[in-house]
Amino acid sequence: MSKQLPPAHPFDDDKLKEECGIFGVVGVADAANFLALGLHALQHRGQEAGGIVVHDPEQGFNSARRMGYVRDNFTSAEVIKTLPGNVGIGHVRYSTAGNKGQTAIRDVQPFFGEFSMGGAAIAHNGNLTNAAALRRDLIDRGAIFQSSSDSECIIHLMARSMGRTIPDRMEEALRKAEGAFSVVAMTRTKLIGVRDPRGVRPLVLGKLGDGYALASETCALDIVGADFIREIEPGEMVVISAEKGVQSHFPFRPQPSSFCIFEQVYFSRPDSIYGGRSVYETRRQIGVELAKESPVEADLVCPVPDSGTPAAIGYSHESGIPYGMGIIRNQYMGRTFIEPTDAIRNMGVRLKLNVNRALIAGKRIILVDDSVVRGTTTRKIKDMLLDAGAAEVHFRIASPPTAWPCFYGVDTPQREKLLAAQMNEEEMCAHLGVDSLKFISLDGLYRANGIEQGRDNSCPQYCDACFSGEYPITPTDMVAKGFELKTAG
Amino acid sequence: MSKQLPPAHPFDDDKLKEECGIFGVVGVADAANFLALGLHALQHRGQEAGGIVVHDPEQGFNSARRMGYVRDNFTSAEVIKTLPGNVGIGHVRYSTAGNKGQTAIRDVQPFFGEFSMGGAAIAHNGNLTNAAALRRDLIDRGAIFQSSSDSECIIHLMARSMGRTIPDRMEEALRKAEGAFSVVAMTRTKLIGVRDPRGVRPLVLGKLGDGYALASETCALDIVGADFIREIEPGEMVVISAEKGVQSHFPFRPQPSSFCIFEQVYFSRPDSIYGGRSVYETRRQIGVELAKESPVEADLVCPVPDSGTPAAIGYSHESGIPYGMGIIRNQYMGRTFIEPTDAIRNMGVRLKLNVNRALIAGKRIILVDDSVVRGTTTRKIKDMLLDAGAAEVHFRIASPPTAWPCFYGVDTPQREKLLAAQMNEEEMCAHLGVDSLKFISLDGLYRANGIEQGRDNSCPQYCDACFSGEYPITPTDMVAKGFELKTAG
Amino acid sequence: MSKQLPPAHPFDDDKLKEECGIFGVVGVADAANFLALGLHALQHRGQEAGGIVVHDPEQGFNSARRMGYVRDNFTSAEVIKTLPGNVGIGHVRYSTAGNKGQTAIRDVQPFFGEFSMGGAAIAHNGNLTNAAALRRDLIDRGAIFQSSSDSECIIHLMARSMGRTIPDRMEEALRKAEGAFSVVAMTRTKLIGVRDPRGVRPLVLGKLGDGYALASETCALDIVGADFIREIEPGEMVVISAEKGVQSHFPFRPQPSSFCIFEQVYFSRPDSIYGGRSVYETRRQIGVELAKESPVEADLVCPVPDSGTPAAIGYSHESGIPYGMGIIRNQYMGRTFIEPTDAIRNMGVRLKLNVNRALIAGKRIILVDDSVVRGTTTRKIKDMLLDAGAAEVHFRIASPPTAWPCFYGVDTPQREKLLAAQMNEEEMCAHLGVDSLKFISLDGLYRANGIEQGRDNSCPQYCDACFSGEYPITPTDMVAKGFELKTAG
Amino acid sequence: MSKQLPPAHPFDDDKLKEECGIFGVVGVADAANFLALGLHALQHRGQEAGGIVVHDPEQGFNSARRMGYVRDNFTSAEVIKTLPGNVGIGHVRYSTAGNKGQTAIRDVQPFFGEFSMGGAAIAHNGNLTNAAALRRDLIDRGAIFQSSSDSECIIHLMARSMGRTIPDRMEEALRKAEGAFSVVAMTRTKLIGVRDPRGVRPLVLGKLGDGYALASETCALDIVGADFIREIEPGEMVVISAEKGVQSHFPFRPQPSSFCIFEQVYFSRPDSIYGGRSVYETRRQIGVELAKESPVEADLVCPVPDSGTPAAIGYSHESGIPYGMGIIRNQYMGRTFIEPTDAIRNMGVRLKLNVNRALIAGKRIILVDDSVVRGTTTRKIKDMLLDAGAAEVHFRIASPPTAWPCFYGVDTPQREKLLAAQMNEEEMCAHLGVDSLKFISLDGLYRANGIEQGRDNSCPQYCDACFSGEYPITPTDMVAKGFELKTAG
Repeated sequence: MSKQLPPAHPFDDDKLKEECGIFGVVGVADAANFLALGLHALQHRGQEAGGIVVHDPEQGFNSARRMGYVRDNFTSAEVIKTLPGNVGIGHVRYSTAGNKGQTAIRDVQPFFGEFSMGGAAIAHNGNLTNAAALRRDLIDRGAIFQSSSDSECIIHLMARSMGRTIPDRMEEALRKAEGAFSVVAMTRTKLIGVRDPRGVRPLVLGKLGDGYALASETCALDIVGADFIREIEPGEMVVISAEKGVQSHFPFRPQPSSFCIFEQVYFSRPDSIYGGRSVYETRRQIGVELAKESPVEADLVCPVPDSGTPAAIGYSHESGIPYGMGIIRNQYMGRTFIEPTDAIRNMGVRLKLNVNRALIAGKRIILVDDSVVRGTTTRKIKDMLLDAGAAEVHFRIASPPTAWPCFYGVDTPQREKLLAAQMNEEEMCAHLGVDSLKFISLDGLYRANGIEQGRDNSCPQYCDACFSGEYPITPTDMVAKGFELKTAG
Repeated sequence: MSKQLPPAHPFDDDKLKEECGIFGVVGVADAANFLALGLHALQHRGQEAGGIVVHDPEQGFNSARRMGYVRDNFTSAEVIKTLPGNVGIGHVRYSTAGNKGQTAIRDVQPFFGEFSMGGAAIAHNGNLTNAAALRRDLIDRGAIFQSSSDSECIIHLMARSMGRTIPDRMEEALRKAEGAFSVVAMTRTKLIGVRDPRGVRPLVLGKLGDGYALASETCALDIVGADFIREIEPGEMVVISAEKGVQSHFPFRPQPSSFCIFEQVYFSRPDSIYGGRSVYETRRQIGVELAKESPVEADLVCPVPDSGTPAAIGYSHESGIPYGMGIIRNQYMGRTFIEPTDAIRNMGVRLKLNVNRALIAGKRIILVDDSVVRGTTTRKIKDMLLDAGAAEVHFRIASPPTAWPCFYGVDTPQREKLLAAQMNEEEMCAHLGVDSLKFISLDGLYRANGIEQGRDNSCPQYCDACFSGEYPITPTDMVAKGFELKTAG
Repeated sequence: MSKQLPPAHPFDDDKLKEECGIFGVVGVADAANFLALGLHALQHRGQEAGGIVVHDPEQGFNSARRMGYVRDNFTSAEVIKTLPGNVGIGHVRYSTAGNKGQTAIRDVQPFFGEFSMGGAAIAHNGNLTNAAALRRDLIDRGAIFQSSSDSECIIHLMARSMGRTIPDRMEEALRKAEGAFSVVAMTRTKLIGVRDPRGVRPLVLGKLGDGYALASETCALDIVGADFIREIEPGEMVVISAEKGVQSHFPFRPQPSSFCIFEQVYFSRPDSIYGGRSVYETRRQIGVELAKESPVEADLVCPVPDSGTPAAIGYSHESGIPYGMGIIRNQYMGRTFIEPTDAIRNMGVRLKLNVNRALIAGKRIILVDDSVVRGTTTRKIKDMLLDAGAAEVHFRIASPPTAWPCFYGVDTPQREKLLAAQMNEEEMCAHLGVDSLKFISLDGLYRANGIEQGRDNSCPQYCDACFSGEYPITPTDMVAKGFELKTAG
Repeated sequence: MSKQLPPAHPFDDDKLKEECGIFGVVGVADAANFLALGLHALQHRGQEAGGIVVHDPEQGFNSARRMGYVRDNFTSAEVIKTLPGNVGIGHVRYSTAGNKGQTAIRDVQPFFGEFSMGGAAIAHNGNLTNAAALRRDLIDRGAIFQSSSDSECIIHLMARSMGRTIPDRMEEALRKAEGAFSVVAMTRTKLIGVRDPRGVRPLVLGKLGDGYALASETCALDIVGADFIREIEPGEMVVISAEKGVQSHFPFRPQPSSFCIFEQVYFSRPDSIYGGRSVYETRRQIGVELAKESPVEADLVCPVPDSGTPAAIGYSHESGIPYGMGIIRNQYMGRTFIEPTDAIRNMGVRLKLNVNRALIAGKRIILVDDSVVRGTTTRKIKDMLLDAGAAEVHFRIASPPTAWPCFYGVDTPQREKLLAAQMNEEEMCAHLGVDSLKFISLDGLYRANGIEQGRDNSCPQYCDACFSGEYPITPTDMVAKGFELKTAG
């Protein structure tokens, strides 16, 4: 309902977008400082806005929500001093499905609710697949929604619960929710973490001084100097206080776990640990598998920076073909750079990436990228390399073809915009005009994740719906809107 | 004389700082668009401020000068439309020696002067070694200085010249200047470029559509889609107009060239061409030389991101030791992040870099960095790696020990702050507490620059004063202030 | 819960504060333009924040809420174009009782609710005297409050109503509300206005081109060129659409009217018509009554600018003593001027008012002010006049002693801070150190309002609780908190 | 050369504009605080920009220059702490003749120059009538101008002086200057004030604690609590230091004084003392004279707020016709309010003034305004009054017809835009469509200024060129550009 951010750079449009990062701390002085740092480390999970809520016994609940980067909004002493307290949660977000691509400030989490037993704030990463149905029902029963966010459904369900404590109410509310959700919440004294029964979205626990931290990724524990204890398990709820430590229980009906495999491919930072594995090492191993599955004679292996780098290193290790920086990234690129005029756009400007001409000229190049979504960037990069005199351009993609949208908290284009939903590998190769194009196989991807026998097709070890079209959780709202699920066989 | 920018991040303090990037265009519609793009590509040469001056026959001279990044200041249609014209120059800067480390907006180039034959603007990269003497003399003769910038000396010298044209006056002015200077200037219709007689600072020429561009580096030509023609030669002055093209002459007494070798080591972007060589390839070759000169048994070669990357690749290529990303950089780090409290600082937060623990643990690591200035960062990185469980930490440095300050347009600490001015290699190794520390030799550096026979000690092919203490141009002002030159022998 | 505005100037602290102004239009193109203008004319009723909601058939509901002045927030074409539509409402506010004196952006009206039959927005001027009780009950029943505003109670009551239309729901909701409220609300096509059964707060209706406008005061009709039709009557609800015009009904149990008499004294702009009378003329007549009731020999009658001006003119007319500007106001004073240091504060600076020394020196001065609240300003002005050489200083106050707090939408100090709650007229005169101090009598005030027979003590024609302590509507929440009503007799 | 401020409100366009206010202090701690306060009190003399320069023995010279109001730019502790020192000067400005109506930040005074004997800053109020000639000559001799301001000429003349002290150089420079100038300047320890030989623009001296202050008007002394000592005399130069107090001399050839009479009419604040007279009392006396010269039968005397108020009071006093507020000013009007659309503009909105309909309707109104420049406002106000039902509208103007432009530091329209340059009184009356229109006579104006015998036509006691066309100082530059002086007789 208000100001729209400038469009992100075109090159970024050609990636799937994780929608959120969450962070919470309890039992530490000046919680807001840690929240700002943790959110900064999770900035790659959401760049449009961020929010922090803290509680102090004297000052009560205080919050700040801002459009833009954590480093620009939450690091001044002036802001931090308005956020006193030893417990708090924070959130960075990408955008909202519901709000026509705009992020209004009223949609910026955490959300806060005042209940008869006291206030609570909540932030989540993920997407409720039955949020539209829940919302419709709540409005019919007199709920006033202030945002288009799924989190607000949870707050309203909590408000109508008869539970006597806030954790009880949260349990009751989340049992009505379907979909993917990792949640951090807080009361005046407690930090709460919940991961959905399938554990689609990540959530990890760390020890921070005398207190605790919950985070989307371990890299956020590293930045505050917290020790990584373990991942929150699928279906687990932890209630943490300075006095009683971590209390764990499992309020949901047990289900097979379905961790998002795209976290391994692209979303998580390479220095994070996810599902017990180093994300960097998994990506490097994807490169190794790719080199085994799809070798090609060439002079140089280059990453598409920065996300293709670990797989390119792995490809080079396995193939013995030298690794080099064929494409250089402009490190001062930000989301606010707008290509000024058509005139310039047509002269072939490169705002974000430049080809290392001297290295590329005359060489047969293997380019390793993490994924192909619309294919628009792939084509531009190929053009840039050929302009610079590359002899051959071979693409190796560190994920299988992305043919299906994600409904679990990831911003994906509509299915018809996904190149792999329209064409097979050969058609894509011809369409993109590259000398060869190979995606890693689903089994190869599972092997790179340490599952030697490959994917268990009867009950896949990960959620890989974006590749396979097999959705572990029925996307209720989308089906109601007419989305056609893949037919069996 | 006014607002001070927040301190840059501590880690950046431990690098030498190029002070400026310059860019100019003539003969193209909407010059300001190209200027904004070119300056964006040169942002690594100066992040504190930027300025653009353009001329339009109807609107006259217009300018904008702002503190901060090009992408934040010069990309909105609103700003660009205030800058009409087909000829213009621009500048990005780091800071000023004279102004106690602050950059006041009045110091932001380009500088403009109104002469009896019309206006001219000028921007330069470099440092006049006799600026203080020139300034004192000019003030005695009634000149009013508005800034602490050397460029303003040039404008005043031009104002007092009896030359009949602006290029004539610029020639006369620059003949009085000593030191390192690459200059772009403009009149109402002409773009002018000058490189000092030794060519210390870079300047390149490109063809941009029907017009021309001058830039500090070729990467700025690439971003606007200009074709690289050639470098401006040491001592050359080019006067370029849409009608008459490029007119070249050599107004200065010829001298041996002394290109800055640190451009190859660190300042220039790896995708630029400098002194006829690919900067990336030179850096990779430095890694190769380092591996030859200072081999060590280890499990992994890691760059200190991002400047150590090409040399680390080269070291891996030569040594056969696998290359990996042992340190991950937070890409959302900006200059404005302030560590909020002592409490947090002491908990070991890492705002900018994080160790890839899973990769590092138990391994013998070779870390390749571009240079060691104060040594503060080197020590912190060593600590981070040991904390993460590295078995051994070996540093290999892609430049010789930096033992002397630069007076040619680079921000260097005072000599006593340079670690290499206080200790030899072994002492530094002990001081930093690493398992080994080796710098490339001066001859190795020259070989990596394609000079097989190594450095010509009687007349070095590059300016390497920061390593050797041999200053090709006498630093007049500094000597007057008591700086002691290295004694022969 | 967030950023606090700088403290208003001390001199302004010594006035009662109207808390809100409201404005609405329907049936006009570019409603937002008219809303901005109308709110600008009502700025004296609330300077801390403003909000606008509009509805357009294609763009739906859009809103903007900002801290600060209307002229600074809502006049740029950029903002106005984000607010398309032919129907809309707006609000300016002073601050919130509930929120510890801070105005958080989330408290800025209008409030918006999405109901099953569509959205509605609501803004009000006044105060619900049973808001705390309503809120507690709503929270118990699962309502999530986003603000500390009374308006949100109304929205929640509407959400839980079973009424089939929005006006029906509003009726039902307002029947549960007690207190003073003038409300403007909107649906997708209708503008709604309601005034509480006693009509405590003002609301007027105007014809604006082919459409209509509702406003707190007629001066807001004047600024948009609307013709004043009539006041909304106490207990009246009007539902206005472009098609059906104004439909009026009276949903509440009839009660005697109790218009706020302080609107005549201070809140309303002098060019407004209120209760059928010119506010200016009423104030001038107060001056006439004061001169009759409390004459004094003097040389000059001066207003305390600007609110004392009409009464001072009236006093001069009646007494024959010349009128003059003994105190000059700095017209560039704003709310943001902060007295920088103690040093300066103690040197007697006058940021807002200055004495016209040449006029004052040696003269006997009658100063006419609208009211005395804490008395702090009165004392400072007296000091300034004596410093400037006044021979005598006589205060004449255009309202009776303000001895009781208002609970109907006016920000009043606690009773113990009100000078007149502590002292009688003679004691105040001694306390303030003035030569004489006289307040108008209650009967004189009624006479100045055109009621020749004076106040009807059995059923006062106005609400004058702040003077008399007789509250026409029981302040339920305050009594529950322990406020002691005046005992009869 | 850069950002343009929004256009001021149309109503303000119909006034002459004083171009500057100046203020300086010496010998007081935290000079910047006093400068901010003093400039705030002088804000009516220039609203577009302000600047402050201070000197501190340790921190040297520091300055801040900002577009906008003093209260918004110079009152935060953050800004004030960047401006340490016990001596300083400040300036508020309206706009520049030379710069096409824009005020660029580079034109914001004070100007600073570094001389061989140390730095100096200077700010002035007025206009050099030979500035263009001086500038042309200085440029020919190699001066680089950074602004379009006359002050910069003075700085350059000082730079080229051979004088041994800064006061000496200033003397020498100002002896070359022609025109109207009141100057405040500062060195590291001294405050300097100069008034041109005819004293066209005002300058007053005050005692501020242990130090001194110089100001354009006494109201700026009042705000800081300084005691008014005396006016600086025409042609006087004072050099003031904490140690030696005020040293006075008269460096210029003596000339008859020619104080600007328009300061009495409009520019100065009514609470200031100018030329030994109370500005308020002079204006009131103008009203008295007007009532004597041009009586008319009427029901009410109203000021056009706020500048017509004292004269309206005087008219009422003399005529016995009651005084009233027929026009109410919106006190929240600022310079930034932009009328949003044509639609609204055509509906007759009144952003700044509103008629007090209830008072006006059916009455014969005498409106007293300070001056008529273009006449556009006069006509609008007449229309508003007739719309509101006034029976007759008589204008009485507190100055003679403004028929000639001012070249002494006042922004006047070109002569052909001045209504009084095109028509005589009767023609104006017909043109404006008012029932009567009378200006005070020149002699009446002199009488109101205490000169009983009226104007001395052989040697007028004031500069009244804007009324008489008799310029006491030849406007050299303007004559060179073709301005035709009034022919004798």
